[in-house]
Amino acid sequence: MKGLGVTGGAGLAYGAMSTLGLAPAAAGPASFRPLAAGDLIGTVTGEHSVVVLGGGPAGLCAAYEMRKAGYDVTVIEARTRPGGRVWSIRNGTEETDLNGETQKCTFSDGHYYNLGATRIPQNHITLDYCHELGVEIQGFGNQNANAVVNYTDGPLAGQSTTYRAAKADTFGYVSELLQKATDRGALDDVLTPEDKDALAEFLSSFGDLSSDGRYVGSSRRGYDSEPGAGLNFGTEKAPHGMEDVIRSGLGRNFSFDFGYDQAMMMFTPVGGMDRIYYAFRDAIGMENIEFGAEVTAMKNVGDGVTVEYRQGGERKSITADYAVCTIPPNLIGRLDNNLPADVLDALKAARASSSGKLGVEYSRRWWETDERIYGGASNTDRDISQIMFPYDHYGADRGVVVAYYSSGTRQQAFESLTHRQRLAKALAEGAEIHGEKYTQDISSSFSGSWRRTRYSETAWASWKGASYSGTEATPEYEKLLDPVERIYFAGDHLSNAIAWQHGALTSARDVVTSIHQRVAKTA
Amino acid sequence: MKGLGVTGGAGLAYGAMSTLGLAPAAAGPASFRPLAAGDLIGTVTGEHSVVVLGGGPAGLCAAYEMRKAGYDVTVIEARTRPGGRVWSIRNGTEETDLNGETQKCTFSDGHYYNLGATRIPQNHITLDYCHELGVEIQGFGNQNANAVVNYTDGPLAGQSTTYRAAKADTFGYVSELLQKATDRGALDDVLTPEDKDALAEFLSSFGDLSSDGRYVGSSRRGYDSEPGAGLNFGTEKAPHGMEDVIRSGLGRNFSFDFGYDQAMMMFTPVGGMDRIYYAFRDAIGMENIEFGAEVTAMKNVGDGVTVEYRQGGERKSITADYAVCTIPPNLIGRLDNNLPADVLDALKAARASSSGKLGVEYSRRWWETDERIYGGASNTDRDISQIMFPYDHYGADRGVVVAYYSSGTRQQAFESLTHRQRLAKALAEGAEIHGEKYTQDISSSFSGSWRRTRYSETAWASWKGASYSGTEATPEYEKLLDPVERIYFAGDHLSNAIAWQHGALTSARDVVTSIHQRVAKTA
Repeated sequence: MKGLGVTGGAGLAYGAMSTLGLAPAAAGPASFRPLAAGDLIGTVTGEHSVVVLGGGPAGLCAAYEMRKAGYDVTVIEARTRPGGRVWSIRNGTEETDLNGETQKCTFSDGHYYNLGATRIPQNHITLDYCHELGVEIQGFGNQNANAVVNYTDGPLAGQSTTYRAAKADTFGYVSELLQKATDRGALDDVLTPEDKDALAEFLSSFGDLSSDGRYVGSSRRGYDSEPGAGLNFGTEKAPHGMEDVIRSGLGRNFSFDFGYDQAMMMFTPVGGMDRIYYAFRDAIGMENIEFGAEVTAMKNVGDGVTVEYRQGGERKSITADYAVCTIPPNLIGRLDNNLPADVLDALKAARASSSGKLGVEYSRRWWETDERIYGGASNTDRDISQIMFPYDHYGADRGVVVAYYSSGTRQQAFESLTHRQRLAKALAEGAEIHGEKYTQDISSSFSGSWRRTRYSETAWASWKGASYSGTEATPEYEKLLDPVERIYFAGDHLSNAIAWQHGALTSARDVVTSIHQRVAKTA
Repeated sequence: MKGLGVTGGAGLAYGAMSTLGLAPAAAGPASFRPLAAGDLIGTVTGEHSVVVLGGGPAGLCAAYEMRKAGYDVTVIEARTRPGGRVWSIRNGTEETDLNGETQKCTFSDGHYYNLGATRIPQNHITLDYCHELGVEIQGFGNQNANAVVNYTDGPLAGQSTTYRAAKADTFGYVSELLQKATDRGALDDVLTPEDKDALAEFLSSFGDLSSDGRYVGSSRRGYDSEPGAGLNFGTEKAPHGMEDVIRSGLGRNFSFDFGYDQAMMMFTPVGGMDRIYYAFRDAIGMENIEFGAEVTAMKNVGDGVTVEYRQGGERKSITADYAVCTIPPNLIGRLDNNLPADVLDALKAARASSSGKLGVEYSRRWWETDERIYGGASNTDRDISQIMFPYDHYGADRGVVVAYYSSGTRQQAFESLTHRQRLAKALAEGAEIHGEKYTQDISSSFSGSWRRTRYSETAWASWKGASYSGTEATPEYEKLLDPVERIYFAGDHLSNAIAWQHGALTSARDVVTSIHQRVAKTA
């Protein structure tokens, strides 16, 4: 990749418009501009090399962008595949976990699940990279009115209620209660008569209230027998009682998909989330990536960084002008390194966390045929936490259900188990929600726990002392935003979108920008 | 199609299990069972002929099921395409409407919109037919947090607010108000202290309330600047004020997708809704369907029904044992017929209604690149009612937006206009919602109004005096459920799912069952 023109003191020029059409329309040639979403990076002059440690989202994005700008880039990746924690499990996937157990996936052709990242919000830069790399996307069912909630506590313990019914009942009673309170004048100091009229109109619609302001059930809940033609009006399901609904906390998970990152529409690549990173790999070029290369040392050495690694039984090393280290923070301290003590301490503040999934291939799509659930997830307070239904192959004769996606202590209940034990526990809990059919027609299964997965040993970073207010950073986090001489850290752990690809990609872009600015200054 | 075995007084037997796998597992050979979802019909003995008037969902479903059962079937369809009001508009679509205007669609290859039915709920039998006929389906975006509401009344008149922000604010203030009322003891006669605790927990989560029970904004609303890596925390959008939110009725459309038929997940065939009816056509066989055949007469004639039609300038007629008439009720009275006066009166009670759409192809997917809207619809009280964004070709360089889908009086504001006038009005209203870009980068457009569409002249039936309670029928509706001698009426207008394919398909199945039972009795 060559520069298309150089001018100005910064030694940088924006290239000609990309054929991808994403370059800024009127970029000044003499001034540096940080990357914006989808921008091309300017092109560097001279020869500058970068070694990227890790071939997950952050590493591949950094490598891709630096290559666009004319850097000589080498990616060192321990695994034999790109994507890191973006990992689609399909026929042929084989892995030995840190419990010492080896699993080999035997799902039918075309069927898979994503053991890591599985959905993309509309606002995330991940979609821009799908666009730029030509990765086809499809809708991801992040909520489904026909999926169920089933909790083990409260008056409705152990009962499965569809989301549509749980929402109808909850919104119905909440509306009835607020209507009653305003009718009684309880909020007359807050609401004018005009406000009350407008609110009443909303509550009537929101809660599907009767003309006298009560919730007495709703067709929104669904039917015991489906309405059809002629005089087949169907039989509406009867509502739960108000106290049962409130005390059972049927609405405890409703706000999940109000979240900025979880609200529909959500998207995912056709064929698996890892398609994005195979596309990055192809764009970067296999000749610039070392797979199966386990880093053992990373050291600043005067005007460069030397990285040592093992590959195919050989010891190798590479020295480059800069390093972008995307190795998980919990693993960096194990490398032979010359990082300062305060940096090593800061890395320790990014604590490991637990998360994992188990995928079950069924030879019958009972969730579609028997329960009319096409995608989305059922929710529970059991250790499995949720059951995610496949968002592809609708109407096929088989499919892969994610029988749990849990994190924290709920995942810890699984991660030390053998796969067979995990499966048994997942099926037992799932059967309490979806019935005995949950344990039948199973072809095969595959599970993974990120804490027990080599080269990760964590699901995502949990920053010691972080407020999660989204408006401040811990000192350790801030410390790692600065390079250590010529070593730069990148990854979702250094973003405000931890556990999202967006976080990894924006972190990579920030680091690329920093290196690029530094090179420009010294050019 | 031949019978696979006959036994018992009813003269009917279920065939061998279908290769489609949808036959009942243990069907008694001697007793007739009405069709159930996805069942095969039993096979008839002897020769029995049926003429089906109309090649829309009801007509093609009836023909398909009767052919499965061994009847000799002929479909007479005025149009040169299958599907009726299921009509996908794509390159080459040409139509002269009842205003006398001819439009020819010049959308780019692969781009289209559905002028009629466009979405399928999970519970509808339409999905079973997709499955049975091998029609591939995909998710349909029926709601989108990034689409906007924009109303012309109230304190926020003319302002576009994303659904995510409108929901966050509305749910936030509703939760705050109810929390305040219960804190004041206004509902202590209805709620126990334990209920209040459980409700408070829900409201805190549902409304994203502060620890003191107030709504002070939420990240759910979205950001003015997107959060990213490092210290880029993003800038949360500030909430609207409580009175503004309540008085503006920002939540007036929230309950739309709580509806039984509108709740996500929703589906649609890949490539256009009409794919279902091309699949029906292929399964029925072109040799059994007369396209471009306009029915002029339908008469009971002793032991049969004679239908006259014009096709290619010729007058033709066909006599069959039975007729299934799926012609819209508003058009049947125009046929040369010998229907009794009370039936003709009953048909008049199914009054015509207005609905239509206008599709605009843009050469730039500004809704995705500029507004991060991938599918779903914006909502307004203007005549356009809603703007529907495409659910396919995500990330492509062009796409078709449905610039209005309105009905009733709002559609009447469009239906008498020329296409050019419709487009101008649609763009003017849409630009008030999505800005000037709404009027730019337009490649072509195509509109249709069902009231002005030949062979339909209505969007759907509006039954005079119907309560829409969903639990009772008008006398006229009931009258038409009975055959007139050997003429049977079918269509979504004779169902509890008017304007849905499910209504047409279940009505057709009911009629097929009725004819089949009658034949069985007389065999």
